[in-house]
Amino acid sequence: MQPGQMAYDRASTVFSPDGRLFQVEYALQAIQMGGTAVAVTYDAGIVFVAYRNLPVSSLAEAGSIEKSFAIDAGLGCVTAGLIADSRVLVEFLRLEAQRHRITFGEAAPYSLLAAALGGHLQQFTQFGGTRPFAVSLLLGGFTNRTPGLVELDPSGATIGWKAYAIGRNRRAVADFLEEKIGSDRTEEVAFKLAVQAVAEGSPSPFPPEALDVAILEPDAELRRLAPAEVTRRVQGMPFIGTPDRAKSAK
Amino acid sequence: MQPGQMAYDRASTVFSPDGRLFQVEYALQAIQMGGTAVAVTYDAGIVFVAYRNLPVSSLAEAGSIEKSFAIDAGLGCVTAGLIADSRVLVEFLRLEAQRHRITFGEAAPYSLLAAALGGHLQQFTQFGGTRPFAVSLLLGGFTNRTPGLVELDPSGATIGWKAYAIGRNRRAVADFLEEKIGSDRTEEVAFKLAVQAVAEGSPSPFPPEALDVAILEPDAELRRLAPAEVTRRVQGMPFIGTPDRAKSAK
Amino acid sequence: MQPGQMAYDRASTVFSPDGRLFQVEYALQAIQMGGTAVAVTYDAGIVFVAYRNLPVSSLAEAGSIEKSFAIDAGLGCVTAGLIADSRVLVEFLRLEAQRHRITFGEAAPYSLLAAALGGHLQQFTQFGGTRPFAVSLLLGGFTNRTPGLVELDPSGATIGWKAYAIGRNRRAVADFLEEKIGSDRTEEVAFKLAVQAVAEGSPSPFPPEALDVAILEPDAELRRLAPAEVTRRVQGMPFIGTPDRAKSAK
Amino acid sequence: MQPGQMAYDRASTVFSPDGRLFQVEYALQAIQMGGTAVAVTYDAGIVFVAYRNLPVSSLAEAGSIEKSFAIDAGLGCVTAGLIADSRVLVEFLRLEAQRHRITFGEAAPYSLLAAALGGHLQQFTQFGGTRPFAVSLLLGGFTNRTPGLVELDPSGATIGWKAYAIGRNRRAVADFLEEKIGSDRTEEVAFKLAVQAVAEGSPSPFPPEALDVAILEPDAELRRLAPAEVTRRVQGMPFIGTPDRAKSAK
Amino acid sequence: MQPGQMAYDRASTVFSPDGRLFQVEYALQAIQMGGTAVAVTYDAGIVFVAYRNLPVSSLAEAGSIEKSFAIDAGLGCVTAGLIADSRVLVEFLRLEAQRHRITFGEAAPYSLLAAALGGHLQQFTQFGGTRPFAVSLLLGGFTNRTPGLVELDPSGATIGWKAYAIGRNRRAVADFLEEKIGSDRTEEVAFKLAVQAVAEGSPSPFPPEALDVAILEPDAELRRLAPAEVTRRVQGMPFIGTPDRAKSAK
Amino acid sequence: MQPGQMAYDRASTVFSPDGRLFQVEYALQAIQMGGTAVAVTYDAGIVFVAYRNLPVSSLAEAGSIEKSFAIDAGLGCVTAGLIADSRVLVEFLRLEAQRHRITFGEAAPYSLLAAALGGHLQQFTQFGGTRPFAVSLLLGGFTNRTPGLVELDPSGATIGWKAYAIGRNRRAVADFLEEKIGSDRTEEVAFKLAVQAVAEGSPSPFPPEALDVAILEPDAELRRLAPAEVTRRVQGMPFIGTPDRAKSAK
Amino acid sequence: MQPGQMAYDRASTVFSPDGRLFQVEYALQAIQMGGTAVAVTYDAGIVFVAYRNLPVSSLAEAGSIEKSFAIDAGLGCVTAGLIADSRVLVEFLRLEAQRHRITFGEAAPYSLLAAALGGHLQQFTQFGGTRPFAVSLLLGGFTNRTPGLVELDPSGATIGWKAYAIGRNRRAVADFLEEKIGSDRTEEVAFKLAVQAVAEGSPSPFPPEALDVAILEPDAELRRLAPAEVTRRVQGMPFIGTPDRAKSAK
Repeated sequence: MQPGQMAYDRASTVFSPDGRLFQVEYALQAIQMGGTAVAVTYDAGIVFVAYRNLPVSSLAEAGSIEKSFAIDAGLGCVTAGLIADSRVLVEFLRLEAQRHRITFGEAAPYSLLAAALGGHLQQFTQFGGTRPFAVSLLLGGFTNRTPGLVELDPSGATIGWKAYAIGRNRRAVADFLEEKIGSDRTEEVAFKLAVQAVAEGSPSPFPPEALDVAILEPDAELRRLAPAEVTRRVQGMPFIGTPDRAKSAK
Repeated sequence: MQPGQMAYDRASTVFSPDGRLFQVEYALQAIQMGGTAVAVTYDAGIVFVAYRNLPVSSLAEAGSIEKSFAIDAGLGCVTAGLIADSRVLVEFLRLEAQRHRITFGEAAPYSLLAAALGGHLQQFTQFGGTRPFAVSLLLGGFTNRTPGLVELDPSGATIGWKAYAIGRNRRAVADFLEEKIGSDRTEEVAFKLAVQAVAEGSPSPFPPEALDVAILEPDAELRRLAPAEVTRRVQGMPFIGTPDRAKSAK
Repeated sequence: MQPGQMAYDRASTVFSPDGRLFQVEYALQAIQMGGTAVAVTYDAGIVFVAYRNLPVSSLAEAGSIEKSFAIDAGLGCVTAGLIADSRVLVEFLRLEAQRHRITFGEAAPYSLLAAALGGHLQQFTQFGGTRPFAVSLLLGGFTNRTPGLVELDPSGATIGWKAYAIGRNRRAVADFLEEKIGSDRTEEVAFKLAVQAVAEGSPSPFPPEALDVAILEPDAELRRLAPAEVTRRVQGMPFIGTPDRAKSAK
Repeated sequence: MQPGQMAYDRASTVFSPDGRLFQVEYALQAIQMGGTAVAVTYDAGIVFVAYRNLPVSSLAEAGSIEKSFAIDAGLGCVTAGLIADSRVLVEFLRLEAQRHRITFGEAAPYSLLAAALGGHLQQFTQFGGTRPFAVSLLLGGFTNRTPGLVELDPSGATIGWKAYAIGRNRRAVADFLEEKIGSDRTEEVAFKLAVQAVAEGSPSPFPPEALDVAILEPDAELRRLAPAEVTRRVQGMPFIGTPDRAKSAK
Repeated sequence: MQPGQMAYDRASTVFSPDGRLFQVEYALQAIQMGGTAVAVTYDAGIVFVAYRNLPVSSLAEAGSIEKSFAIDAGLGCVTAGLIADSRVLVEFLRLEAQRHRITFGEAAPYSLLAAALGGHLQQFTQFGGTRPFAVSLLLGGFTNRTPGLVELDPSGATIGWKAYAIGRNRRAVADFLEEKIGSDRTEEVAFKLAVQAVAEGSPSPFPPEALDVAILEPDAELRRLAPAEVTRRVQGMPFIGTPDRAKSAK
Repeated sequence: MQPGQMAYDRASTVFSPDGRLFQVEYALQAIQMGGTAVAVTYDAGIVFVAYRNLPVSSLAEAGSIEKSFAIDAGLGCVTAGLIADSRVLVEFLRLEAQRHRITFGEAAPYSLLAAALGGHLQQFTQFGGTRPFAVSLLLGGFTNRTPGLVELDPSGATIGWKAYAIGRNRRAVADFLEEKIGSDRTEEVAFKLAVQAVAEGSPSPFPPEALDVAILEPDAELRRLAPAEVTRRVQGMPFIGTPDRAKSAK
Repeated sequence: MQPGQMAYDRASTVFSPDGRLFQVEYALQAIQMGGTAVAVTYDAGIVFVAYRNLPVSSLAEAGSIEKSFAIDAGLGCVTAGLIADSRVLVEFLRLEAQRHRITFGEAAPYSLLAAALGGHLQQFTQFGGTRPFAVSLLLGGFTNRTPGLVELDPSGATIGWKAYAIGRNRRAVADFLEEKIGSDRTEEVAFKLAVQAVAEGSPSPFPPEALDVAILEPDAELRRLAPAEVTRRVQGMPFIGTPDRAKSAK
């Protein structure tokens, strides 16, 4: 921390002398504490892979820790950050998507949804009595069957990507993606790249059920892969295994 | 406490520099002060057992200290934390369940109720002028007669479990559950496991009336066991007995 | 006080690091400054006895310092704490009771009224810009002519009792009650026990008019005993007498 | 002041660790700075006498400094404390009295008016963004032609009295009243007692016009005595005279 | 300032431990910085004289600095304190007067207007988020053609006077008035007394146009004297003259 | 700054112990940072001249920096202070003028507009959550074809002038005006005086386009002089020239 | 920073003693952290060029980082500052433009839109509970086919320019523009000037896709140049090239 930083870091409504909004930066810090999530576009769709910060307990229903969410046909997202904050934003997206569908009789363009969500996030960085959302989100969709991804962060900024990472070790994982990504990607290639990227950002070894994997294709609802399918497809990858039994981390 | 923690721990609307919401963590601390509560699913239902932080006084009506609550047919919960906060959340769940029943003509899926309650809890972690609820809650219900449990905590996060513990010594009790739980559980087995788990987390010996026990089965209202039935079923368990007479602890 | 306590004790909306709500605890402290009040159930009803913190002045109309209040037929309460706060809560109970009677055509169950009042009290512990009520209250009523008592405190928690004490020296008085209470109580026995218990918690000797005594029986309005009747019934009790003349304590 | 008192004395919405509301106590302090006021009941009515904190100036219209106020037929009061705060409360009482008269076709019972005003005062001790009223008030009325008095203070508490004092030196004056009061009082006796009591609490000598005197009798409006009548009736009392000419104290 | 005063002097909603409202006292201090204003009643009317704190500049339109204001027929006032605050209060009085005239078909009694304005001023001493008005005001009117004056200050208190002073050196000027005032006053006598009193409180010599003079008589609008008339009537008074040329004081 | 001043200078709703409103004084300070503006009445109208705090850049459209504004026929003003604040106040005046015209079918008297604007400005000095406007303004208009000027400042006070200055070096410029002004002024004389006065308050030399000049005459809209006309009329004045080329000051 | 600056720099509603609004200044500081943007008018239109603060990653969709925005036919803008804040303001402009078009049946004059946006920005500098927008914006449009530009900054001030720069190194870039700009500019000349100016303010070398270029001509929607066209037109410029590969800067 800079000297004097604490004088400006208690509210989203206060700029520091060098023009920073520290509460927004701290919200990004909260997101870093959650698991890594990655999205990779391929010729006909998008693969979303997220590491579940699983309570290390066989009592947990892994499937209940959702990281990827269907929004509407051909629209889906993966999130990193606070679980409860994420659910609020996903509800926002679903409602906006339904509103668009009812008004215009067709699915909402993903860039339009991203702009609406960005506007919602921005308000929590400008008005008092609240805090920014501690969530980053990769929203995917299609323009004429060409896949596209938009990243949203607590500031409400939106940036488009071919493939990107959010959550823990985001920068290193993005660098990994950039280095390894090829130009013509099939679903199989994209899936492997995404899983490897998530493994880059996560403690290993980890069991297959630590991965939340979903595939988005045009005009269809986001397909979350069943645990068995995930297990089958990641078989033999070097970072898949049983973590040391430690006391439940939750 | 970390140095500097006090600069960020007075409001739910302020992130610390490392992205923590201390008021939410302190609410969890308040829950730790209450009694242990456990829920265990079995083949045909769910057993809820909670330790009542009884005023050590024969004047008290033990039955008035409720820890488990019926929500609707096939829907129930057990709580840990502040009594008055719990009552507010139970009222919320009952109202949501009725609203769903009136709108759709059938009982609400427990996961839907959990999401609604999670959204309610989240708001108390993002908007100012209030504090988070100091309650953890295990909500149980059925999907096609298969029992399911969702844990809710002050952050509004929701996680699914086969069996879990909240309140005092939650982690140790959850570890005990994980170690002892078998795969095919009858009501009898689940009952014993749950009572033993609660005893793990509680001071002993304690009298049978310190236990609030309830059974949830599909399509039926939560059945809270009468004191006599509890006494009969826990007879002979090593931790059941008369506590040293101390001055009323209340 | 703990070191650091003052950092968390100015608002009901702030948890301390160990999960305490100090403003609620301080409100309990305010209640300790008022007189002792006791309620004892017996076979056919409830006796309420409260010590009036009388201004030691023959100018005062003792009857104007009310501690016990009729709510509806078969419903009554005794309070300890701030006079003006008590009046607000009694008005709340009366209004709820009337609302229930008008809606359902019968008296409200006392446990329902207690839950409603508990919810009201809870709100003053969770929302800002206000303080908790500095009142404890023993609400009595009947279920099928069986008497019951619920204690409410500033947190909004509700606990059922056969007999209990609130206000000054509450714990010692409750211990006295537990020790002396028998199982089959007539009105006469309950009256004596309650008066003795109040005397345990109060400075003595005191004149009969320092006692506010009321009897609740099913389907009838709370009957506040006239001063003459109180004088007659407490005659000869060792703690009844004339206090040393001190300057008006008010 | 206690050490640490200043940490809790800035708002009505904050209890001190020992359960005190300092802003309410400070408001009582403000009332002590105003003149003494006394009310004494007698067989057929009530005498109100108040010392006007007169600007020592022959330019002032003494009659404009009102301390006693008619509320409705058979209803009146005397106040001590801030002039402007008093006017607000008197308006409140007059409005409540009219509302009752219009609704029920008869004058409001004085105890009902006192409870309503007490509720109003209480709100200013529990909700933020405001301060308590700095006024004490003795409200008089009749029940079946028997006179009664209720004292109200900034906390909203209500206590009934046969005779009582508010404002400067309230306690000493009340002790004087208690010592001198007899049981069968005529208007003449009550008047003399009230004037002597006020003189006990006030600097002397003072001129007759420093006294605001009013008589309340059943079914009639409060009768404020004309200056000439006051002068005639207090003639020869030892404390009546001309104060040393000092510079205008205002 | 007392030690500790600063802990209590930032808001109208906070009493000091000795019951003072410092913001109200500071508003009175602001009024002391403005010019002296005086009102003197006489047999058939009221003379208002105020010293204009003139920018010492021949460029100013002296007539634009109004200190006396017509409210309605037979109703007028003179003010001291902040110009903009005064205008707000004068607008309040005019509106109240019109409202009364429209409702009752006659001019409002001046004491009624004073009470209404006092209530308005009081609210700014009890509710947060605002400050008291920095204005004192002498409101004049007639009861059956007998002139009367009410003083209003930032606390909202109202006191009646035969003659009085507000603004700079208020106390000394009031003492002067009391010493010099006679019992049967003509307009001429009242005018001279008022002008001399204002001169007591003001720096001298001053030019005639520094005086704002107005006469109020029954049923007629306040008559503000034209500069020429003022000049003629003050001719020869010892304090009338040309002030030393200093740089514009504004 | 006085010692202790900082304790009272953060809000418009707090008086200092000597009755000052520092935020209003600081707003005046902000106005001092802007360019000088002058208005001078003459026999048939008013000349407004303002120095534009021009970014020293030939890229700027000088005409876009407006200092004088038409309000309605025969109504105009010149401002000093924050540009955005000025625009808000000019909009207020235009709206009020239109409202008057629509209601009464004639142009609003300038003194009425000034009072309305003064009331608007006053509210920002008495209510919390906002700051005063950092604008001074000279509003001009006509009464029976006689020109008049009113000055408004952040306090909401209004003073009338024959000629006056606001903004940088206001006092020195006003002294210059007072010294040089003659009694019978033609437009030509007023124009020269105003330009010279502005030059007194401004850094020189400056180019003609640094001057915003406008003429107001009865029943006509304010006429802002075209740059060419300004250049022609100021030709040969000693302070007109090309400033040293310094880096853009903006 | 000045000594004492921190006492006044936490809210837009507080002036410093020298009349500054530090939060507005800090918002300008935030804008300095973003990329440089430039607009240059030419005979028949306006060229907007902005440097995208590109995450140095081939994964990003450069086109998703928009700096220039179409508002309506013949209306467009370029922005510098926070992305999410910019989107809010662009939405404001588009809505205002549509509202004008619907009401008046023609495109809104750009100066009218600028005034409306300026008013919106000003409110965030005067009312509490919020912060200023961290955006500067150059809005372009036409008056009778003559192009015009207005700069808006966080204070809400509006200034017209022939050509201007916002964002990083704004002053140096504006000086460059002033020095190099000629009087008769074709689109080609304006384009080159704008690109060179942006390069002055930006780290170099940079790839063509770092430039967001758009052309505005009368009655047509803003035309954003396709990446290929930009690449072709900047070919051979000295600052175009491949930046050193550094780790992703985002």
